[in-house]
Amino acid sequence: MPSLSHHDMITLLLALGLLIGTARLLGEFFVWLQLPSIIGELLAGVLLGPTVFGRIAPAMQTALFPTGGAFPVALDAFTGIAIVLFLLVAGMEVDLSTAWRQGKAGIYVAVLGMVFSFAIGFSVAWFTPVFHSATIERDPLVFSLFFAVALSISALPVVAKILLDLGLFRSDVGMTVIAAAILNDLVGWITFAFLSGLLATGRTPLPLGYTLILLAIFVVFMLSAGRKILDRALPWIQAHTSWPGGVLGFSLAIALFCAAYTEAIGTHGVLGAFIFGIALGDSRHLRGRTRRTFEQFISFIFAPLFFASIGLKVNFAANFELWRVLLVLVLATIGKVVGCGLGAYFSGMGKRESWAVGFAMNARGAMEIILGLLALEANFISERMFVALVVMALVTSMTAALMMKFILKLEKPRRFFEFIPTRGFVSELETHDHREAIYQLSRHLAGLIDRDPESVAEGVWRREQIMSTSLGGGVAVPHARLDGLKTPAIALGISKTGIDFDAADGELVHVVCLILTPRDNPDQQIDVLADIARTFRRPGLLERVLDAGSNTEILSVFKTEDIRRA
Amino acid sequence: MPSLSHHDMITLLLALGLLIGTARLLGEFFVWLQLPSIIGELLAGVLLGPTVFGRIAPAMQTALFPTGGAFPVALDAFTGIAIVLFLLVAGMEVDLSTAWRQGKAGIYVAVLGMVFSFAIGFSVAWFTPVFHSATIERDPLVFSLFFAVALSISALPVVAKILLDLGLFRSDVGMTVIAAAILNDLVGWITFAFLSGLLATGRTPLPLGYTLILLAIFVVFMLSAGRKILDRALPWIQAHTSWPGGVLGFSLAIALFCAAYTEAIGTHGVLGAFIFGIALGDSRHLRGRTRRTFEQFISFIFAPLFFASIGLKVNFAANFELWRVLLVLVLATIGKVVGCGLGAYFSGMGKRESWAVGFAMNARGAMEIILGLLALEANFISERMFVALVVMALVTSMTAALMMKFILKLEKPRRFFEFIPTRGFVSELETHDHREAIYQLSRHLAGLIDRDPESVAEGVWRREQIMSTSLGGGVAVPHARLDGLKTPAIALGISKTGIDFDAADGELVHVVCLILTPRDNPDQQIDVLADIARTFRRPGLLERVLDAGSNTEILSVFKTEDIRRA
Repeated sequence: MPSLSHHDMITLLLALGLLIGTARLLGEFFVWLQLPSIIGELLAGVLLGPTVFGRIAPAMQTALFPTGGAFPVALDAFTGIAIVLFLLVAGMEVDLSTAWRQGKAGIYVAVLGMVFSFAIGFSVAWFTPVFHSATIERDPLVFSLFFAVALSISALPVVAKILLDLGLFRSDVGMTVIAAAILNDLVGWITFAFLSGLLATGRTPLPLGYTLILLAIFVVFMLSAGRKILDRALPWIQAHTSWPGGVLGFSLAIALFCAAYTEAIGTHGVLGAFIFGIALGDSRHLRGRTRRTFEQFISFIFAPLFFASIGLKVNFAANFELWRVLLVLVLATIGKVVGCGLGAYFSGMGKRESWAVGFAMNARGAMEIILGLLALEANFISERMFVALVVMALVTSMTAALMMKFILKLEKPRRFFEFIPTRGFVSELETHDHREAIYQLSRHLAGLIDRDPESVAEGVWRREQIMSTSLGGGVAVPHARLDGLKTPAIALGISKTGIDFDAADGELVHVVCLILTPRDNPDQQIDVLADIARTFRRPGLLERVLDAGSNTEILSVFKTEDIRRA
Repeated sequence: MPSLSHHDMITLLLALGLLIGTARLLGEFFVWLQLPSIIGELLAGVLLGPTVFGRIAPAMQTALFPTGGAFPVALDAFTGIAIVLFLLVAGMEVDLSTAWRQGKAGIYVAVLGMVFSFAIGFSVAWFTPVFHSATIERDPLVFSLFFAVALSISALPVVAKILLDLGLFRSDVGMTVIAAAILNDLVGWITFAFLSGLLATGRTPLPLGYTLILLAIFVVFMLSAGRKILDRALPWIQAHTSWPGGVLGFSLAIALFCAAYTEAIGTHGVLGAFIFGIALGDSRHLRGRTRRTFEQFISFIFAPLFFASIGLKVNFAANFELWRVLLVLVLATIGKVVGCGLGAYFSGMGKRESWAVGFAMNARGAMEIILGLLALEANFISERMFVALVVMALVTSMTAALMMKFILKLEKPRRFFEFIPTRGFVSELETHDHREAIYQLSRHLAGLIDRDPESVAEGVWRREQIMSTSLGGGVAVPHARLDGLKTPAIALGISKTGIDFDAADGELVHVVCLILTPRDNPDQQIDVLADIARTFRRPGLLERVLDAGSNTEILSVFKTEDIRRA
């Protein structure tokens, strides 16, 4: 039985560690830049692959990521499963009832967006000679169809993430975009499956007609009876097997079977996992915790691994052509922004909102890259075309978030602890006196943000004298509004022994949270206060805060409290 | 670049789905029998492998699990990584400070247990001819050493699981056993690493001395400076990267690097992951949620996959020899039970507790199987010896739980909802009257457990009249103690419109939880009441209960509320 040698195992462990580690590192860097993490994850592969590392030290690169022997097979197995799991999670985010509720607007946006993009993509590929070198030994009709599909898809996971980040998920604009993206995704993937069936000469013993019929049966079954069976089976599994192990194990096994089915009938495994994900995610019995365990392990481990591995396969520098990248980007953006924007406008939205919808739907993200990779591996397209599609996917995802913020004049909602400056944490207030504690903390914070310490302290104390700012439970939130402040500033002072703030519940205060907010933005003060109150209501939080010894530890405590935005 | 073909991918998806699905199915079945799930997981592989499926339908078995081509390489990659991740989680369960605190007793138990087992194992293998056929082309000294180590190890994860199940984890007996198992594991794995170094002729370019020095440096560094660095780095990672993605990704990447290191110096990858797991799990900054995401995904997906895959490699029927299995089992049990039992007795424990400690430490579980598989793959031992070790591991794990229950006269603590009989859920009480609701539910439950309806109802109502059993928040717990009842019985009645139970908080009661307990066990009534009160205090629970339409859905709701036992 062929197996992995001792040496193969070392290589595999190192390679997986490097891919996952670098992908997360660069992914986090891009998140810090307020850009999608997928850019960093792809970049990790570009750095570790032939494009950069292979150019600098070809021998070492091939030693770490061999292109022969057992290693590429093993890596292929991991990334193949990773992509299937990623589509499972993407499917679980699809909420069919949302799509129904926003019916009309969603259909307008989805259909016009797809029609426009498809028309533009097909016309350019079919009637002009610009992309004639893009396909390899293939029928130009098939390439034109593929290119049209590639321009038409949206990326539901990216779109959903952007809307969540901007606090727009449950708004009208948000729900319309989500509904449209769901329809778009569904149609896009099925069309792609159709296309790959069309091309699967020799890949499968089934004639194309059978492939399509078997696919249709699967999709219809899963989204009707399958969905209902899962909804009935889930409570049974949760009631009678270990939790969450039972649900996790069985869902994963079925997802793999569905993927095997769609792969076997001549389309792609990702489609089966995606459709099953929709059916599973639709059940109201699926608990949030199970969902999150899937999401976390898959989006933070498997997805980065998959995206990074792409860079190992393709040389991005050698296959980068500026004209091609720009052309694909412009065609893609025009098709979606105009198509979806018009759809939104016709369905009755304002101009501003319609533009926002257009740019949101323009995000291609992971889906485009997966589609491109499948097409590349099936020899639909050349490496140059693939690189152009990847760049287009990244740029449209980036601009989606930026343009929505710009058009709708939005700010990403910030948690209160993001307003604590680097030295804003006082690990021990050296007083037991109410007034002295407030003066001490106020002076400290004023110094950090370059304001006059005495006037700040007096302002806070004046407010405190009107009524105690104790929230009960050992926490107080003295506050003041200042002229000319740009953003809120918060300092946190700890008193292990406790300070008498004259609290309504009679308890001593151990955590003093001093809040300074801009005078011209009273809402912000209320938001911050509400956020603090909600956070400190979590059981066990106070102990962890009192236990923290530094600014970093405090931030770590707050960040790992899982407060969900409404 | 060699890669997985379309056909390989279908096979891989199907095979992984079958392995994970069957392993969970049988695993759950054994949990239902109150036995460790690992038995079912191994059995899944035995069924799918050459032992059963291969005997019934050899052609089909080879088609699904091919022994040539890319498939075995891909499966090997998955199981190789799975075992590394499993040891990472096992390491995370090790709590060094517990080992310190229970120092004396733990050391007595661990050392005597190891010395006894080692002596017995070595003597039998070295001085008698019984196992001379067990090793393949190897030095009998090395085999004797291996066999001695194989008898000496314990299985911390299994032991911890048994103690948790029995509610003994934080007791003196429990903590001593855990401390001893930690020491035992640590010494056992390092000794095994030493052994594999001793045998690694040709596997590594390093001479044995270097291997041992490099290993010692790694272990000492990880458990001292490395542990401190991780403890400092964790808050920083949690504060400054996405949560829990940052921690998950980076820990996994480092675990893979550590595994690559220990593999590269000529020992095994599992050792690096295990030691890193100890260092990581030791940090108080590692949040429970991160720990559980690792645990859940790895113990419910990767571990079953690994254990099931073992059955694909070995024919358990052809290599089963009763005399060998019994001999190994008896030697293993005598060594551990006598050694550890004496250790516990000398450290000052009572006779009963000492026996319990002995049987608990006798559990070999997953660790023995992993050790055996590594030895099999390194050609230390024959397949027959491997099968004997696996059976010994399973039997000792099963007896550990049974004997502890028997010796300490323990019951596994049961959750209140386990006392609800199959038809004990009334989805709508057809009355708004306090007395009528209690009579209706009492009669219903009495009928299900064969008691006189009227006398039960009167008993419950008599108690209710003394003082309302409303817990507040819409829940009431009418109850009575009955003569001759063996176990508690609970019925749950829902009233959507609400019933006036004269509650202290003035709210109407929507959930009536009728509790009948044995008269001679007043503690049980209190336990059940406390469990119900604690459960219904969870936010959002009442809504989910009111939403449930059947017995199964109710059970699913309760079971997926994550109430942790203290």
